[in-house]
Amino acid sequence: MAALNRSQILEEQLARIASREPLVRAWSWHDPKQVRDQLAALPADTSALPLAGITIGIKDIFDTQDMPTTYGSAAFANHRPERDAYAVAKLRAAGALIMGKTVTTEFAHQHAGPTTNPHCLDHTPGGSSSGSAAAVADNMVTMALGSQTGGSTIRPAAYCGIIGFKPTHGKVSLEGVGPLSVTMDTIGLMARSMTDICLLSSVLIEKCAAVQAPARPRIAWYPSPEVHEADQDAVRALERARDMLAAAGVEIVDIQLPANDFLALGQSNRQIMAYDAARSYESVYRIQLANLGASTIKLIETGLQITDAQFKEELGHVQKCKELFAKAMVGVDAVLTLGAPGQAPLKSTGTGSSTFNRVWTTLGVPCLTLPFGKGDTKLPLGVQFVGALNEDCQLLALGTKFEAIFADQPSV
Amino acid sequence: MAALNRSQILEEQLARIASREPLVRAWSWHDPKQVRDQLAALPADTSALPLAGITIGIKDIFDTQDMPTTYGSAAFANHRPERDAYAVAKLRAAGALIMGKTVTTEFAHQHAGPTTNPHCLDHTPGGSSSGSAAAVADNMVTMALGSQTGGSTIRPAAYCGIIGFKPTHGKVSLEGVGPLSVTMDTIGLMARSMTDICLLSSVLIEKCAAVQAPARPRIAWYPSPEVHEADQDAVRALERARDMLAAAGVEIVDIQLPANDFLALGQSNRQIMAYDAARSYESVYRIQLANLGASTIKLIETGLQITDAQFKEELGHVQKCKELFAKAMVGVDAVLTLGAPGQAPLKSTGTGSSTFNRVWTTLGVPCLTLPFGKGDTKLPLGVQFVGALNEDCQLLALGTKFEAIFADQPSV
Repeated sequence: MAALNRSQILEEQLARIASREPLVRAWSWHDPKQVRDQLAALPADTSALPLAGITIGIKDIFDTQDMPTTYGSAAFANHRPERDAYAVAKLRAAGALIMGKTVTTEFAHQHAGPTTNPHCLDHTPGGSSSGSAAAVADNMVTMALGSQTGGSTIRPAAYCGIIGFKPTHGKVSLEGVGPLSVTMDTIGLMARSMTDICLLSSVLIEKCAAVQAPARPRIAWYPSPEVHEADQDAVRALERARDMLAAAGVEIVDIQLPANDFLALGQSNRQIMAYDAARSYESVYRIQLANLGASTIKLIETGLQITDAQFKEELGHVQKCKELFAKAMVGVDAVLTLGAPGQAPLKSTGTGSSTFNRVWTTLGVPCLTLPFGKGDTKLPLGVQFVGALNEDCQLLALGTKFEAIFADQPSV
Repeated sequence: MAALNRSQILEEQLARIASREPLVRAWSWHDPKQVRDQLAALPADTSALPLAGITIGIKDIFDTQDMPTTYGSAAFANHRPERDAYAVAKLRAAGALIMGKTVTTEFAHQHAGPTTNPHCLDHTPGGSSSGSAAAVADNMVTMALGSQTGGSTIRPAAYCGIIGFKPTHGKVSLEGVGPLSVTMDTIGLMARSMTDICLLSSVLIEKCAAVQAPARPRIAWYPSPEVHEADQDAVRALERARDMLAAAGVEIVDIQLPANDFLALGQSNRQIMAYDAARSYESVYRIQLANLGASTIKLIETGLQITDAQFKEELGHVQKCKELFAKAMVGVDAVLTLGAPGQAPLKSTGTGSSTFNRVWTTLGVPCLTLPFGKGDTKLPLGVQFVGALNEDCQLLALGTKFEAIFADQPSV
């Protein structure tokens, strides 16, 4: 059978959205005509456009000049930016079709939107990149942009059974993106295959053509000091992933990270996020309190109490841990660790916990989650690989290799 | 005579604006009532607010939730942001009074607004931070925020006879600031005294209390390879500044910077700026061409022709020069060089040249211009000091010391 052409793929995805969106509720803005128009406007020769005709969902914290941008907040319900965010402009310049805006929690924090987990509709897709993860998982779109300040890309990707990639902090400009923490916010990439993740990364981040995974990678086994907060089925899956890698010739090694410093680093993430968010949203808080979610209000009020001196102290601790991590990673290709505490919890409980993400986000290092089997109630699980700072290409090469190894696993 | 209280200072500045603004045209938005209301809303105890009651002009590329933000562009004439830029929020949290929005060239590039040089009204105040420099120079406001991507803070400060400070790139978040080049944009600080610059810096950047200038600073004399493009009166002033410093005990040393690499770095600045600007404003260019200035259109069209590969190559050259500069600065406290080619040119010719600023901005290093005498037609001149990366506190300490040395100079 011949491969589908661009138009056929688009029509299949549009049909999928039409049928499933009333249940999944991944989109805060989607207009089929607008997407078909983008396809029609592509030049006849698209050979220089690496993403020509590929559909991408954009988390609704990224400004778009032709679609509303609400930041997931009733306070920004009427916000119509006049400019694309830098990342969106780069995608368009590469020929991508912007499929619409995906549901985000308010300001990419916790206050959740309506999106459900496409694998089981009363569970959360995770957050804050809720709609991006659900739309990719439900085959509504080929790729999506998210962001991560705590665990907002890796966790929803794991909960929805797709691949999530958070590059090194600062690799992609966040100009035109509603901030949560200007100190730590990082773009996130989501797709269903490493091929697609690498393609998207080559446009947004860097070309990695020359980087290959080592023949015998050295992967550090790191059950976090907080592993007791994880579910047993998730820990068993992580151990099984480790054993599959070892059986495929991967060397499993130890890594020494001082437990107290790294526990404190999770707390630094919370403090820095609150400090920054309060400074970005104080005026909204003063003027539009009634339009903000309770968790957002609490975040801002917490942040307003944090002094400049406390903030500086947290930054100092982060710097110390960055140096510790860089030293510990010498001779290690990636860390293998949990990407989420387990399966997606019920939507009524929130969007899940970022316990197993905060430390890495705060260090600024690249993180990749691959889907890995199912948990006790048949919802997806993921395993996370963490690379050294700026070693994004190496981490993607490892991910491609490990995706192939995991493809051989028996379905659970 | 007792010092004026906050309210008296504010009323003097408001009266100055009322009388002079029809000539100077520094403001794109100013409402006296709004500023008086801010003063009235300060708490009774302002001891914890380092900028309590101090007026600040905000370049109109910084978003403000209570004032329009046009980015100096007819395409954004109706833009009303719902949030303060991060830097504006920090100023408000420190008790500052936002005096209004100051005129900027379009997107902080070249297309100029109506502002004149308060020292001579048919000359340019420089750009792109035109209104900020003119308002501070004309005593309309105590301090102002600008930005710099080429020479947009240092040059207008020099042209207007005030102090301009561009900190190390990345020291202050530009969240909520209309971009020109997301790779190089940097905030700029303007005031009439080093005391005020240091106070503003302590809120926005970092506290420098413990940093003192060396007893015998080592200053590198660097007549740029492009010095032939400068006016003779400006070069003579620079030499006189060097001699005054030497007479006051400053050690004048040489610095070796490869001329060809550094000439190419100026070109890198132009290429990176165009590449980035095109990606930020391509959608505006497509939709609102008739509302853009000719120089802005040329910038975007130039940038659209620059490929990702060319952009990466320029970034590689920048990185090489950063390493060369860091090595050359070992044992040197600051470079002494031109901050502008001479006096402010006629407004009809544009906003002046950034030839003597681009290199330093692209390196990301801190730059400080101090007013230094007058040129042949009695317009102000400035001299520029450039520090090593992240040595902002040291550069401010030197500036404070040199301000005192220069205060002894005979008026020219």
